[in-house]
Amino acid sequence: MEASIMEPNEYADLFARVREHRPLVFHITNYVTVNDCANITHCAGGAPVMADAPEEVEEMAAIADALVLNIGTLNKPQIESMILAGGMANDRHIPVILDPVGAGATRLRTESAERLLDELKITILKGNAGEIGVLAGAEAGVRGVDSCGVTGDRVQIARDFAKKTGVTIVMSGETDIVSNGRIVYLVKNGHPMMGSISGTGCMAASVTGVFAAMAADPAFASAAAFAAFGIAGERAAEQSHGPYSFRTALFDELARLTPDDLTTGARIGTG
Amino acid sequence: MEASIMEPNEYADLFARVREHRPLVFHITNYVTVNDCANITHCAGGAPVMADAPEEVEEMAAIADALVLNIGTLNKPQIESMILAGGMANDRHIPVILDPVGAGATRLRTESAERLLDELKITILKGNAGEIGVLAGAEAGVRGVDSCGVTGDRVQIARDFAKKTGVTIVMSGETDIVSNGRIVYLVKNGHPMMGSISGTGCMAASVTGVFAAMAADPAFASAAAFAAFGIAGERAAEQSHGPYSFRTALFDELARLTPDDLTTGARIGTG
Amino acid sequence: MEASIMEPNEYADLFARVREHRPLVFHITNYVTVNDCANITHCAGGAPVMADAPEEVEEMAAIADALVLNIGTLNKPQIESMILAGGMANDRHIPVILDPVGAGATRLRTESAERLLDELKITILKGNAGEIGVLAGAEAGVRGVDSCGVTGDRVQIARDFAKKTGVTIVMSGETDIVSNGRIVYLVKNGHPMMGSISGTGCMAASVTGVFAAMAADPAFASAAAFAAFGIAGERAAEQSHGPYSFRTALFDELARLTPDDLTTGARIGTG
Repeated sequence: MEASIMEPNEYADLFARVREHRPLVFHITNYVTVNDCANITHCAGGAPVMADAPEEVEEMAAIADALVLNIGTLNKPQIESMILAGGMANDRHIPVILDPVGAGATRLRTESAERLLDELKITILKGNAGEIGVLAGAEAGVRGVDSCGVTGDRVQIARDFAKKTGVTIVMSGETDIVSNGRIVYLVKNGHPMMGSISGTGCMAASVTGVFAAMAADPAFASAAAFAAFGIAGERAAEQSHGPYSFRTALFDELARLTPDDLTTGARIGTG
Repeated sequence: MEASIMEPNEYADLFARVREHRPLVFHITNYVTVNDCANITHCAGGAPVMADAPEEVEEMAAIADALVLNIGTLNKPQIESMILAGGMANDRHIPVILDPVGAGATRLRTESAERLLDELKITILKGNAGEIGVLAGAEAGVRGVDSCGVTGDRVQIARDFAKKTGVTIVMSGETDIVSNGRIVYLVKNGHPMMGSISGTGCMAASVTGVFAAMAADPAFASAAAFAAFGIAGERAAEQSHGPYSFRTALFDELARLTPDDLTTGARIGTG
Repeated sequence: MEASIMEPNEYADLFARVREHRPLVFHITNYVTVNDCANITHCAGGAPVMADAPEEVEEMAAIADALVLNIGTLNKPQIESMILAGGMANDRHIPVILDPVGAGATRLRTESAERLLDELKITILKGNAGEIGVLAGAEAGVRGVDSCGVTGDRVQIARDFAKKTGVTIVMSGETDIVSNGRIVYLVKNGHPMMGSISGTGCMAASVTGVFAAMAADPAFASAAAFAAFGIAGERAAEQSHGPYSFRTALFDELARLTPDDLTTGARIGTG
């Protein structure tokens, strides 16, 4: 889990491994964007599986290469399933990605995200600035699941929270901030059109799950995943007539992206 | 809540306010078309949020600008969440839009729609002729959630039901009928292709929620919303190769629609 | 229910009846691909309805022309609803299509599929080789809900399992195998792009439901449905830029397909 700064061609190597091995990414997720998550997992190079019944989530986690937990349409039984699946994932040392959708908007979401962070070993916590800020104890505001704000230096919030928890933090935004407490990656890929549709945040967590399944270093995997997804967004924006044709192109372009495209297109700095 | 006949440029003013303020529309809705509802809310100019856990729906309603209740895949716990969220929405005087999907097809749906109308102050009830007819006590037939018929003068059924209940009634169809019991708007926008895909009815309720969030007059807001959505449908039909490319274009065209387009394209008469 | 080998123009006749009557296909299905199932039902020529509350599923089954049961995101209450709806469907002698998504991956799925096969008269069981193999007692392996393998002669497994159970078996794959225990149809339509997105398996079950609703012979209906869906896939592949534009084209092409297209395009042999 020691991260060091990676060279661009290492992004390509990781992406090539993803495409070769097609990791199985098990999602316990919301019913709004679940189809998007399944299809973007395919397009990134993984195989998706979705389930949430307590009777079967441990078995699913036992065959998966990564687990994505998304609280977008949370309910109490689903949290119990997340705990069960997460326990199995931890036992098997596969990465667990938590997307705390709407943390800060309601107590149920904030407290459930905190409980998952507390009871499970979360590998990667991916949220927008408001969600991460709330969980980090920074002054943050969340409105619904979509808008957000945070007061203070975002890089410092992410790095400090990662250092404190041992969790790789991904704070999405115009520049995506990834930190494991030591290294900070700043991913500048992406396009404003990605905010014009629902589900890009959830999809980014799925793509992160696909990459993390094939990497020893969660921070590097997260940066590579956000770069790949962002490049797809940049390419999609060039050919779209509006938000929904953009969405179609976003899936297509991620599926068409090659490891070499990732090497040349990634704009990842360090902070 | 007094409605008077609006001038065409008032549609543009309302639409401009929507685009400026980006109202938060909280949905408790079905799992079939929920993603469509989220994306169409974005495209109309709002921000969507979806949830249904009883522990959090009041908090979501407390930050929302409108509430959309859709019974498309109803279950008993969801109805309780609708009652909770609706109570908060009523306390805050934000508009509540009810889409009684499939009322008349099963007792659960008919009785649940009646209960919501009874226990909450519904601002706008939006359904097809069969659904509205059943709830209005007219002779109506509903087959599944899709086909419908009603015997009698539709305008009169809508106006009388609105007068009796104080709810703005929107009866969708080739001509959409909107009435608050006094004024009747007849919206002639739209295209038959809108009936070739699932979800346009649900999406229309979401768009209505977006517009109603920014308007004092629910009947006017409903007419403007149906005109905007209908114009998008007309434009989408011109460029589609089949139902699904039509669907993509429908989202794109609503997102591209300007207030001026609404002024010039709206075909709204009074009955 | 006696099957005999059909002539190509009989596919066209069946498809023409579908388009004329627009059968109502009631789905109790997963929340991942439910929207795809609704829209593909429209595109095939049917009318979809989705529900799963125990209070209403019998009423829905009482007005439906076919019932599709899909265990893709199974939970215990949903199984009870499937039993209730299936009982009504059996009483009314409408076809029941079971898609045992992920059977073999978890005990809940395997046992639930077995229970549905045991307690209901299933008309058509549609799965991939791994799912069918597991339920048939063959040596099979299922990984998540997506990948699969089976050892042995697939045609023989399907035919023997159909003979033993009286259920029409559809084993999807590069060549789709349909058998009622006597006749075997081998459907060679389709395109590898259909495996690049989520939901094509679920959609195929929906299309099968649409066709089975209008046919006396479930094996013939299944072969015709898979041929129609496969031809749409072949045509969609010619015009797509990636998996998601393929998906859009798949819906469009099925909606555009005519009975004559089915006669000329179907590649159905017998085994």
